[in-house]
Amino acid sequence: MRKTKWAVIGAGNGGQAIAGHLGLLGYEVNIYDAFEETIDAIQKQGGIHIGGIEEGFGKIKIASTDIGAVICDADIIMVVNPSIYHRAIAEKCAPYLKDDQIVFLHPGATFGAFAFKKALEDCGYMKNITIAESNTLIYACRSVEPGRADILGKKDRLLVSSLPATNNKYVCKLLKEIYEEIEEAENVLVTSIDSTNPIVHCAPTLLSTSWIESDKDWYFYHDGISQTIGSFIEGMDAERVAIGRKLGLEDDKNLFTCVKQYELEYNVKRDTLSEAVRNNEAYDGIKGPKSLNTRYLFEDIPMGLIPLISVGKQLGMKTERMEIIVKLAELMLEKDLHENARTVENLGIEGMAAESIIEFATNGMK
Amino acid sequence: MRKTKWAVIGAGNGGQAIAGHLGLLGYEVNIYDAFEETIDAIQKQGGIHIGGIEEGFGKIKIASTDIGAVICDADIIMVVNPSIYHRAIAEKCAPYLKDDQIVFLHPGATFGAFAFKKALEDCGYMKNITIAESNTLIYACRSVEPGRADILGKKDRLLVSSLPATNNKYVCKLLKEIYEEIEEAENVLVTSIDSTNPIVHCAPTLLSTSWIESDKDWYFYHDGISQTIGSFIEGMDAERVAIGRKLGLEDDKNLFTCVKQYELEYNVKRDTLSEAVRNNEAYDGIKGPKSLNTRYLFEDIPMGLIPLISVGKQLGMKTERMEIIVKLAELMLEKDLHENARTVENLGIEGMAAESIIEFATNGMK
Repeated sequence: MRKTKWAVIGAGNGGQAIAGHLGLLGYEVNIYDAFEETIDAIQKQGGIHIGGIEEGFGKIKIASTDIGAVICDADIIMVVNPSIYHRAIAEKCAPYLKDDQIVFLHPGATFGAFAFKKALEDCGYMKNITIAESNTLIYACRSVEPGRADILGKKDRLLVSSLPATNNKYVCKLLKEIYEEIEEAENVLVTSIDSTNPIVHCAPTLLSTSWIESDKDWYFYHDGISQTIGSFIEGMDAERVAIGRKLGLEDDKNLFTCVKQYELEYNVKRDTLSEAVRNNEAYDGIKGPKSLNTRYLFEDIPMGLIPLISVGKQLGMKTERMEIIVKLAELMLEKDLHENARTVENLGIEGMAAESIIEFATNGMK
Repeated sequence: MRKTKWAVIGAGNGGQAIAGHLGLLGYEVNIYDAFEETIDAIQKQGGIHIGGIEEGFGKIKIASTDIGAVICDADIIMVVNPSIYHRAIAEKCAPYLKDDQIVFLHPGATFGAFAFKKALEDCGYMKNITIAESNTLIYACRSVEPGRADILGKKDRLLVSSLPATNNKYVCKLLKEIYEEIEEAENVLVTSIDSTNPIVHCAPTLLSTSWIESDKDWYFYHDGISQTIGSFIEGMDAERVAIGRKLGLEDDKNLFTCVKQYELEYNVKRDTLSEAVRNNEAYDGIKGPKSLNTRYLFEDIPMGLIPLISVGKQLGMKTERMEIIVKLAELMLEKDLHENARTVENLGIEGMAAESIIEFATNGMK
């Protein structure tokens, strides 16, 4: 069997770590970013130096700011960008995509596969490609300089599904060559609803504004998820879980509260979210942002809370805690966070009942 | 002219300081509280020791938990309770009130005189009394033990009006015997809208939750009113000012933004609220609460923001920032703060247009 060819979109922390690692494993891999400085450094070196739990030099075939050149021959196009760029990436890729390519959003954030597919359709794209998404990024990693990335840790579990889910076996088999931690999820509703960053990030950020804007350090989980804030987040989480349930997910099977996820992922068993995060060693030392201009708001709200609210409302679910956090953020930041947000309209599921959305995720049919 | 007789309702910090000071000046004064320990101590001593900027022993005629005994012979009944008790005080007083007595809510908080009058009417009370209110409490004071209060400072200006305003001259003349700082306001709309605690207290409290629930000290004004929080408060303040304008108040005459008030009261001239409070020496060292169970929320929301929203909505004004703070507080505290809140219904002004409310404040006629 010939080795799969990869294109990595995005040369940030995650993109460089992933592309470098693929090169290290001997795969043919290209990398794209709009940021010339990073691309030039990689092109000059002919690859990416990897440190941390993997060590070595990963050869890169093409590092380019020309997305067509990067993706045209790839079997799998892995998108490792902040989710706010997914739509723009889809629009840039559309002219170059070919039948049978796989686009893998890593991670997809909330309803990423839906959003990517709808963006392609809006471009008039009708080819037969499979879009897949993961619930999270496999690595904890950082790039200290262009052309060099450290892989600091690896998740024990990576949920992946494709849209439609009928392609799951095929896609997951290819991805598992690289990431044995992959678990096949029933459909992209599982991977999307499992994405809990928006639930956990937004409220502690807003409710720590005075601390953020002081000259003092604070710790995001230990300080930010105080007792009352933890309870409030559990209320937001209950809204997310209810939406998941409505979309056919099952409690403790493919739908877990945040508290339960901490137990599964970090072996921290506590009754409340506040207690769980304060007893999670993996969170020790994670400082909070020093400005409200943070992805905890600018990514997690338009790409996380707003799509959950939009889908939830269409399904007749209650989302008052998520809504108030969105509204408060908009008023505090004096910015319309709905402008480029994911909603049922640009997810391509406007007016669809829960059953139709499940059917769409499963078979790709509307 | 015979000396006025006083009844002071409430033997907290303010009530004891005020009653003790009246006794010190040689007035006949009674004091009421439901809290027996304080009342017993005062009764036993026969008065209240006053320290600070006033010094001496103020004789008290009757200190009692029997409100009828305390108020029956008084010319002026001064209510020095947290505003959340105003309605209950009105109900307790109603059976004992007599024609021509003056009830002075010190301070009235937002629409206190309206609320007190409506509470009396709901009790079937129809006698000819005048209800007056101030915008704030004249003293900075504290009681270190029952029967002893320190007066630490005195405001330069105390706005007072009565309901109806036609009694203002008479009431202010009597009160000015004690407090020469009194300025007669046009009507109780001025004193009510001038009350800015709800505007300044609620948002910094909620948006400092993680700090409040940490074990670290924080400073309410210096830390809590950071740049973004300050801007948000200015937005809330603009909603308040717009309501005042609609109710006939005039900018820079009897209606001042918070930023302008800091300039007038503390001689701190800055463009933004955040800069103003950080440059106000009077605020140095004022620590923030260590729990969300604070009057900054439990008094200032039901007695401040909710009545402003309720009146504002009736007048067709925009109150989205105030509303979101109320809603957020309710969800975080998991408590219905509307339960005993002041609204157009229990202020006795339901359905009234701005002109009618102004007329009511002026002449007492509906």
